[in-house]
Amino acid sequence: MRILGIDPGSVRTGFGVIEERRAQACYVVCGVIASKGTVPERLAAIFAGIDEVIETYQPVAMAVERVFLARNPDSALKLGQARGVALVAAARHGIAVFEYTALQIKKACVGVGHADKAQVQHMMRVLLGLSVVPSRDAADALACAICHLHHQAGLAPTGWHS
Amino acid sequence: MRILGIDPGSVRTGFGVIEERRAQACYVVCGVIASKGTVPERLAAIFAGIDEVIETYQPVAMAVERVFLARNPDSALKLGQARGVALVAAARHGIAVFEYTALQIKKACVGVGHADKAQVQHMMRVLLGLSVVPSRDAADALACAICHLHHQAGLAPTGWHS
Repeated sequence: MRILGIDPGSVRTGFGVIEERRAQACYVVCGVIASKGTVPERLAAIFAGIDEVIETYQPVAMAVERVFLARNPDSALKLGQARGVALVAAARHGIAVFEYTALQIKKACVGVGHADKAQVQHMMRVLLGLSVVPSRDAADALACAICHLHHQAGLAPTGWHS
Repeated sequence: MRILGIDPGSVRTGFGVIEERRAQACYVVCGVIASKGTVPERLAAIFAGIDEVIETYQPVAMAVERVFLARNPDSALKLGQARGVALVAAARHGIAVFEYTALQIKKACVGVGHADKAQVQHMMRVLLGLSVVPSRDAADALACAICHLHHQAGLAPTGWHS
């Protein structure tokens, strides 16, 4: 069972795919979709990038961080635009989307809820046996995917509020 | 030359297509994409709806309202998600997207910048010779399209800031 984690952003969107093998999270791929140009061009690049990852790696679920309170309306709008594109890319492939809070993701990956980004990067390297530390966005995406794997294995996933 | 105006929203997305004939704005179609279900399902419905409108009516440009300051981060995120989906639908068809401020749209359609929604609905009926008043979301979408037509005819359109 492959899981795609996504860390959406208007400039850089992280993605990470993991696979469950013998109840272990195994690394498949991770990376960053860096986009430039106008806003519609950047969003189209995010859509095409996620579409390609889904086509290539055939995940059965997508996990994204639930946004509780964005910093400000302007950044929330930009994040929302990238996030909407990621969600629609999943929906068009019939992939179920699961949301987790930042606290759930950090607890699942680092064991504590107040971990910083560097700790998440370090733990992704350790947990998945990577030879190099993944970039921040890719590490956050992998952490989302691992969080979903843990919740699938035991706890009920956090559903969508319509 | 056909222009598609879009008024994106997480629950209701208005659309309106107008056509220029002898320097006049002529009505082609308008409506609302009402979506329900989970957030990814709703976004997929918006994407599919706009995609169908573009396929059917072949507009050469899309016009949307520029969001200067959303009310709050939560509504900005939801609006952003719907907006991102609309922009990516246009970009995937190679359609140029133009943004206009609420002030520009109201001035182009009602003549003043402080018009309320009912005035916009009324003016859309009058300007386009409709037999019925369009719904609020559809009227806002038509108003975006008319604003773009006016700017195309004379003023330079407001470009995207990357």
